[in-house]
Amino acid sequence: MKEDNGQSIELHKAQSLVLNACSDLSYERVSLAESLGRFSANALIASAPLPGYDQSLRDGYAIGRAGSAETQASLHSFQIVDEVAAGDTRKLVLQAGQAIRIMTGGLLPAHCAAVVPQESCSVVGEILIAPLSQKKSFIHAKGSELARGQVVVPKGALISPEHMILLAGVGCGTVQVARKPRVSFFCTGSELVSSADEKRAGKKFSANNPLLQGLITRAGAEFKNQQTVVDDPGAVTETILKMTQEGCDILISTGGMGPGKFDLIEETFCRAGGKVLYRSIHLRPGKSTLFGTLGSTLFFGMPGPPPAVYLLFNELIRPAILKLQGAKQRRPRKQRVFLAEELFFPKRGLPRLKGGLLSLKEGKCLVRPAKRMEAANCYIYCPASRRQMRTGEMVTVHLLE
Amino acid sequence: MKEDNGQSIELHKAQSLVLNACSDLSYERVSLAESLGRFSANALIASAPLPGYDQSLRDGYAIGRAGSAETQASLHSFQIVDEVAAGDTRKLVLQAGQAIRIMTGGLLPAHCAAVVPQESCSVVGEILIAPLSQKKSFIHAKGSELARGQVVVPKGALISPEHMILLAGVGCGTVQVARKPRVSFFCTGSELVSSADEKRAGKKFSANNPLLQGLITRAGAEFKNQQTVVDDPGAVTETILKMTQEGCDILISTGGMGPGKFDLIEETFCRAGGKVLYRSIHLRPGKSTLFGTLGSTLFFGMPGPPPAVYLLFNELIRPAILKLQGAKQRRPRKQRVFLAEELFFPKRGLPRLKGGLLSLKEGKCLVRPAKRMEAANCYIYCPASRRQMRTGEMVTVHLLE
Repeated sequence: MKEDNGQSIELHKAQSLVLNACSDLSYERVSLAESLGRFSANALIASAPLPGYDQSLRDGYAIGRAGSAETQASLHSFQIVDEVAAGDTRKLVLQAGQAIRIMTGGLLPAHCAAVVPQESCSVVGEILIAPLSQKKSFIHAKGSELARGQVVVPKGALISPEHMILLAGVGCGTVQVARKPRVSFFCTGSELVSSADEKRAGKKFSANNPLLQGLITRAGAEFKNQQTVVDDPGAVTETILKMTQEGCDILISTGGMGPGKFDLIEETFCRAGGKVLYRSIHLRPGKSTLFGTLGSTLFFGMPGPPPAVYLLFNELIRPAILKLQGAKQRRPRKQRVFLAEELFFPKRGLPRLKGGLLSLKEGKCLVRPAKRMEAANCYIYCPASRRQMRTGEMVTVHLLE
Repeated sequence: MKEDNGQSIELHKAQSLVLNACSDLSYERVSLAESLGRFSANALIASAPLPGYDQSLRDGYAIGRAGSAETQASLHSFQIVDEVAAGDTRKLVLQAGQAIRIMTGGLLPAHCAAVVPQESCSVVGEILIAPLSQKKSFIHAKGSELARGQVVVPKGALISPEHMILLAGVGCGTVQVARKPRVSFFCTGSELVSSADEKRAGKKFSANNPLLQGLITRAGAEFKNQQTVVDDPGAVTETILKMTQEGCDILISTGGMGPGKFDLIEETFCRAGGKVLYRSIHLRPGKSTLFGTLGSTLFFGMPGPPPAVYLLFNELIRPAILKLQGAKQRRPRKQRVFLAEELFFPKRGLPRLKGGLLSLKEGKCLVRPAKRMEAANCYIYCPASRRQMRTGEMVTVHLLE
């Protein structure tokens, strides 16, 4: 089914079409350790208070109400009557004038007024000499971190180390998360070879195969399958059908997207039953890119040049990988920063995204274009109307994460 | 062997001791796709020029020198004599006045003056009508991206998508990288339980087990083994010996580091033959932490509270994981930014690191303290002499990556 929707569309509109086509994946249960960096399927609630019992924050002495006054008015003496190690579950009780030796994390005896850290007191035989008052009680009170029923992780939130600490503390051993989206891809081009034996003038090694496999894994998706396919409609159609039947949530192709005679992705995708949602975006590089659906599979037809593939992966495919997992933040984050070096383009007419390097200098955030072998950490946005961006002006960057 | 080196040392000195104790790990060969985010064992050199042959940048026509003049002075006509698909390896030759249809990436015929994109010309039968001159030749010249012998990735550099594109292009299918450091850990504490059945007042779930396992994996190391151990010198010594004998590059313990009666890590580590390099650092939280070596294993004795474990992991253990792999950048990167919210501490005396959230506002980089359930993206450094940091002042942050 072929739907002609005319001209190029804007990048943000393309992103919306992609995100709207994503439906939630099924869930899986993973250990808390494995949940780091995944997206919670549900709001996660504290099933118990944290801490679960009143406990000591220091190695020292739990003291009851003060006993007899000492010669120095600010000090009191206490009779040491017992000892609580961490892990001791006995429910002890302090009488006035008594102290119990206690370890960090130890269960506080009933009627405990405070814990005196061992470095703040002295012991003579079974007698503790401790200050009458201290600013802190060194008691970690039950429920002071989390109340039972409190939301620890909202639905769709990225699980962080901070979440893990709280979740583990209330005994949450496993977490339900969206499963990782399965992504397959194929690279078209009769010029592509994979071994040095086949390499000669006119043939080239495909950079998109290792690049996409690496990007898919780094984006938190599951790399499922990949293939190189010659520029033949029959072979491409067969690959599309085979890879969707194997079961992938996202299918990507590279190459075969230009206006030339051998450009074949749209034709074969439609012949395989795909529905095209856009076929070009108002962007350089990466103009020739299509998106559509084939059953429940999202299909991204990307151009051949690897830098465009890298850019479009970040702007369109990574957001889909995040949305499929129920993530709240999907599109690349945008920031306004200062341009540290002039940018100049041969012509206007299309918005551009140019790899950039962000840095901080005395609290000011600067960006400059990345050199060819440098790892960009953002893209600098240049509006269609501009051929030149001046040093010192504010520009919008899209973060690469 | 116990070496008393007195007082707490500064964090940067502790980092130096850790980094100096790291020796390079052995190497392994991984596919280019798997090399993303690993550290190159060698300088990687282009074994061939990129592109490997002169090729077309567009679908269009390769034209020879101009033939007869047309009625419109700016247009010329060419006889279309052949067609080059991508992947065609025939070495064609253009005569004056001839054109050859060519696809993007196609091998350029000899004596080609330029490629005319198909959208810039017209065809009548076998005659091409093309502009006499255009600003660009649309030729991607052999070696214009990389010369043979050029360094693509310096030794010890993090392999990026940009590197992968170039390496793949010159036929590099596998890369030698440092193997991932193997990390084991044990959490001490007789109060720690792992199932709800054992949970009662006085017992708690260990947050450090899932936290450390998650952090180790996220830092690019290999999680090897973990265990919970009671506060018993014999059990701890046995665990240290067992885990080092299993072969780990880094061994971490949590708990058992305070000044109390049951604190036992230093004693058991030394009894097992370990050499202590520091036993306390001038930092809050995280003061009670030791570092030493036991044979070729690096040993980190960390305190019990999970927020301190998270902080020390980022400041001391992640740098070791990076250095073991030969990485050039090891310590957390520091930046100067504006404090957006007042910070106040109960006492001075030790430098502090407080979880923070960086954000950008019109090119200015701001930081504020992170709330308890928020995922910090940096630590805010507060000098020992300060109890208060004012809104608007410049502070140093350590980035969390």
